[in-house]
Amino acid sequence: MDYQTILATICAEVQPLLSQGKVATYIPQLAKVSPRHFGMAVYCLDGQTFSVGDADQKFSLQSVTKLFALALAFSREGDTIWSRVGREPSGSPFNSLVQLEYERGKPRNPFINAGALVITDILSSRFVQSDIAILQFVRMIADQPNIDFDATVAQSERETAHRNYAIAHLMKDFGNLHNPVKTVIDSYCRQCSITMSCAELAKAGSFLAQHGTVPWSGAQILGASSSKRLNALMLTCGTYDAAGDFAYRVGLPAKSGVGGGILALVPGELAVAVWSPGLDATGNSLAGTYALERFTTLTARSIF
Amino acid sequence: MDYQTILATICAEVQPLLSQGKVATYIPQLAKVSPRHFGMAVYCLDGQTFSVGDADQKFSLQSVTKLFALALAFSREGDTIWSRVGREPSGSPFNSLVQLEYERGKPRNPFINAGALVITDILSSRFVQSDIAILQFVRMIADQPNIDFDATVAQSERETAHRNYAIAHLMKDFGNLHNPVKTVIDSYCRQCSITMSCAELAKAGSFLAQHGTVPWSGAQILGASSSKRLNALMLTCGTYDAAGDFAYRVGLPAKSGVGGGILALVPGELAVAVWSPGLDATGNSLAGTYALERFTTLTARSIF
Amino acid sequence: MDYQTILATICAEVQPLLSQGKVATYIPQLAKVSPRHFGMAVYCLDGQTFSVGDADQKFSLQSVTKLFALALAFSREGDTIWSRVGREPSGSPFNSLVQLEYERGKPRNPFINAGALVITDILSSRFVQSDIAILQFVRMIADQPNIDFDATVAQSERETAHRNYAIAHLMKDFGNLHNPVKTVIDSYCRQCSITMSCAELAKAGSFLAQHGTVPWSGAQILGASSSKRLNALMLTCGTYDAAGDFAYRVGLPAKSGVGGGILALVPGELAVAVWSPGLDATGNSLAGTYALERFTTLTARSIF
Amino acid sequence: MDYQTILATICAEVQPLLSQGKVATYIPQLAKVSPRHFGMAVYCLDGQTFSVGDADQKFSLQSVTKLFALALAFSREGDTIWSRVGREPSGSPFNSLVQLEYERGKPRNPFINAGALVITDILSSRFVQSDIAILQFVRMIADQPNIDFDATVAQSERETAHRNYAIAHLMKDFGNLHNPVKTVIDSYCRQCSITMSCAELAKAGSFLAQHGTVPWSGAQILGASSSKRLNALMLTCGTYDAAGDFAYRVGLPAKSGVGGGILALVPGELAVAVWSPGLDATGNSLAGTYALERFTTLTARSIF
Repeated sequence: MDYQTILATICAEVQPLLSQGKVATYIPQLAKVSPRHFGMAVYCLDGQTFSVGDADQKFSLQSVTKLFALALAFSREGDTIWSRVGREPSGSPFNSLVQLEYERGKPRNPFINAGALVITDILSSRFVQSDIAILQFVRMIADQPNIDFDATVAQSERETAHRNYAIAHLMKDFGNLHNPVKTVIDSYCRQCSITMSCAELAKAGSFLAQHGTVPWSGAQILGASSSKRLNALMLTCGTYDAAGDFAYRVGLPAKSGVGGGILALVPGELAVAVWSPGLDATGNSLAGTYALERFTTLTARSIF
Repeated sequence: MDYQTILATICAEVQPLLSQGKVATYIPQLAKVSPRHFGMAVYCLDGQTFSVGDADQKFSLQSVTKLFALALAFSREGDTIWSRVGREPSGSPFNSLVQLEYERGKPRNPFINAGALVITDILSSRFVQSDIAILQFVRMIADQPNIDFDATVAQSERETAHRNYAIAHLMKDFGNLHNPVKTVIDSYCRQCSITMSCAELAKAGSFLAQHGTVPWSGAQILGASSSKRLNALMLTCGTYDAAGDFAYRVGLPAKSGVGGGILALVPGELAVAVWSPGLDATGNSLAGTYALERFTTLTARSIF
Repeated sequence: MDYQTILATICAEVQPLLSQGKVATYIPQLAKVSPRHFGMAVYCLDGQTFSVGDADQKFSLQSVTKLFALALAFSREGDTIWSRVGREPSGSPFNSLVQLEYERGKPRNPFINAGALVITDILSSRFVQSDIAILQFVRMIADQPNIDFDATVAQSERETAHRNYAIAHLMKDFGNLHNPVKTVIDSYCRQCSITMSCAELAKAGSFLAQHGTVPWSGAQILGASSSKRLNALMLTCGTYDAAGDFAYRVGLPAKSGVGGGILALVPGELAVAVWSPGLDATGNSLAGTYALERFTTLTARSIF
Repeated sequence: MDYQTILATICAEVQPLLSQGKVATYIPQLAKVSPRHFGMAVYCLDGQTFSVGDADQKFSLQSVTKLFALALAFSREGDTIWSRVGREPSGSPFNSLVQLEYERGKPRNPFINAGALVITDILSSRFVQSDIAILQFVRMIADQPNIDFDATVAQSERETAHRNYAIAHLMKDFGNLHNPVKTVIDSYCRQCSITMSCAELAKAGSFLAQHGTVPWSGAQILGASSSKRLNALMLTCGTYDAAGDFAYRVGLPAKSGVGGGILALVPGELAVAVWSPGLDATGNSLAGTYALERFTTLTARSIF
């Protein structure tokens, strides 16, 4: 089957699942999105693109932006970032303070909230406005200058950010946050509010499938080794507490968000983005995870 | 560089590291092995083999046998095993009882001791003697009938198995152990005592690089999908608490043991085994991990 | 009001509560006891006794025996026991392994199972048969030679002792258990099976109300200072995870058991025992706790 | 011995201990206090007072104020406060976030920081300025209108309050903080900065020794039952993680602070305050704890 047929097949298969997930409800803007949306887009490294369903509709990236913030920080600061954030799966709910306290303020990895706040802090030390720096980075790798924050979402994030404030203050207490807590939280909330479509997201992630180099421009974001290492991190830590299960079922490096988006990579071949707002119990898109599982089966693509 | 040159290069490079690791000391038989050993062997799916150093010397497989026990159980029982053991990284020391208690006796994955005991329990329900069944399975996939237990090691394991007894009794209390505790522990201790050489280990693991089929015989141990899924588990959970770091540095599915052995896979191409008894702080072979990191760099092989 | 009137008042008041508790069900012998039993007995240091309801019916002491085992060990070994068991409230479920692992095999206090096993271990090192030693000690302080084990209960305890086995093996692994695990568990299960009536229990505990000296015989079990210290331990740790709440409501040093018995002390005045098999969510006798709360109110007795 | 002789004896005995404790260092104002200070004062319910050493020197009350804030809140709100804060010992370091997260934002007791913040929040809902309300309450029960905040200490507390901010935000996230985080933290930091002398502190606490009634004025702060219950809380939770050990050694209800002060009660007889800035590993005054242990021994006073 060609990719377009495969996407159409998957889109038909997931329909019964769309009613089973639960949309995130902690902010009104996410709560009011219909769980019946489904979109999927493939960006092949040779430039071919395929898509199905709501692949061009914008959605809130949320934690998927953690990947881009990390890529930006890693490209600028290199391996020094690992002195402040670990590279191990968390093994407990993604916003838990327990592990953070036991491990003296050093987050387990850059994809849990604590780790993402450290990355934001690192970027806040380097850029005048770290949220703008991330936005410009995303616009560049997606080749799409109109990508933007959603100010309403960002504002709601800020108003419900008590747990993130708790995490940030705890890290501040341990000396692992250098900028003011409010600065870091504000930037983080804006970063999370970025909206993109599946088609844009697949294109934006394609440099990680091509060993750190943007396919259409040849710009090198990361060295090949660094890019592979980010892929490894995505596989072991990219989908909250379900990373093991996700690797077992899907077998691709991926990063998910509570907006229902997931970006996954077939190294050397393509990037694939999927969006469906209904989440499973682990906070990952229910239909999206299934769609990617079917994608690796139907394309016989897996890194294993 | 060809594989033989690469192995020779790595063997030269690791020499300074051999004095840095610490051999496991919890049983006398492991404590008295010199940390200066180093062996490495590659088994290509086309039948070619390469090796260097102490690649033909037998060593204690220890936790590497958890992989073979799992493969055997998975081949016989299929996905039903996941009702009794999870597929997520543990995120805490590999023999911790804490997580086991919080999660009501269901171990996080089959590669921590608790999970391996559940797998042994499953095999003990199916086979008259689960340890013999595992041994025969290993002999078959390694094509080497003289592979055997080390009775002295098994006896020492039994004598120092208090923590494993604690784990087993706790799971028994939660109803997740069906056979007598002593039966399971005895079998587990014998299984851990299996000795093999790197050359044998690489050959034994090659079916996992060839999608579940033994390369030289064509025997199908696992379906392609199941085999890929075991690879995913190895990557996310195969190297104790360092799985994230190992994936970051090495980027291959692997299973390690405190005897200093590590088996790693390049899916579709080869299996590689390394042995050096000096361990790092996470319980993985220090020189062995470095050797595999260099192997993926020099061969430009990585799953990412 | 005189004590007899007070006991009668309380007995009338608790009747509606008798249907609200839940009897322990982990062994059949406890599960089949009717929750409608209620007995209460007071032993004044001047020798006067008062009782009401089922005060002469035997019941399973269970964890109340931990107090007598501790008193015996403390009387023989003195403060050296505190090198192996702590004196702090546990702050988590009474049979939790978590804290034990974090604290390297040293139990928080002698009234949680782990701590009681250490005390049994200490007694097992000193006496040929620690369970017999405890029984003889209890017979002596109760002035009642026919107090005995319940062999059926002891056997059931042994058969369901997986969690205690887990705890004991974990402590063995940490080096904090000197005798064989099976020896300690067997003794502990027999100790727990001792049966007594409220009248006997109040008399047996009276030496702790009289600063360590048996009121009717003048025999000194513990020095005054040691006796006060056991009282302090009872107050802070004697009623499982509800010690704070129990102190708040009742305000007396006490030790409870899942058989539904509670022994409490008014230092310098009396010992009071209550029995009602229905337990509250914390494992303490529901009607018994209420009865003691009323007792301190109606007698205007409290240590505070 | 009379009280004055006893105090003099104790003062002589503690001299060698004064060099062994460590003063709190997290804010400069505490760090620069000499550990050689020692003061002790007794306030008998009949109005007699005794004192020794630096009994009239002001020191920073710190956590001792948690007792007065609780008494004020309890006197106004009664048992409704227990829906928002527990009554159990914490069993883990006094500022730990772990337990707070496991228990969904409900602190274990009012004497750990989390619980004290909830009490401050309760007071902030009732009074225009909760810190002023606490100060006026303390002035009243100490009969000393010149008791005041230390503005420098309060400012330093605020600047290093990251962990308290983390705790407050976490409770806010769980819905257990009704006023703005900053309001509560500011009030709490001011409350902690109150300075008093031992003589003032003993007098201020005397109503808790007299069943809730101020001895010299007859004003009833709390009912007898409520007062006894606060005593019980002090005993089980008043000295951080060392409450069990403190009860074992001293055997009196007490509340300590990192400024080196401890207030203890002999119900029905007296209140005793001690101050020595050198702390032991649990955060309690090293010489102060020893002094109280000696006090109960020499006076033969204990609640047990």
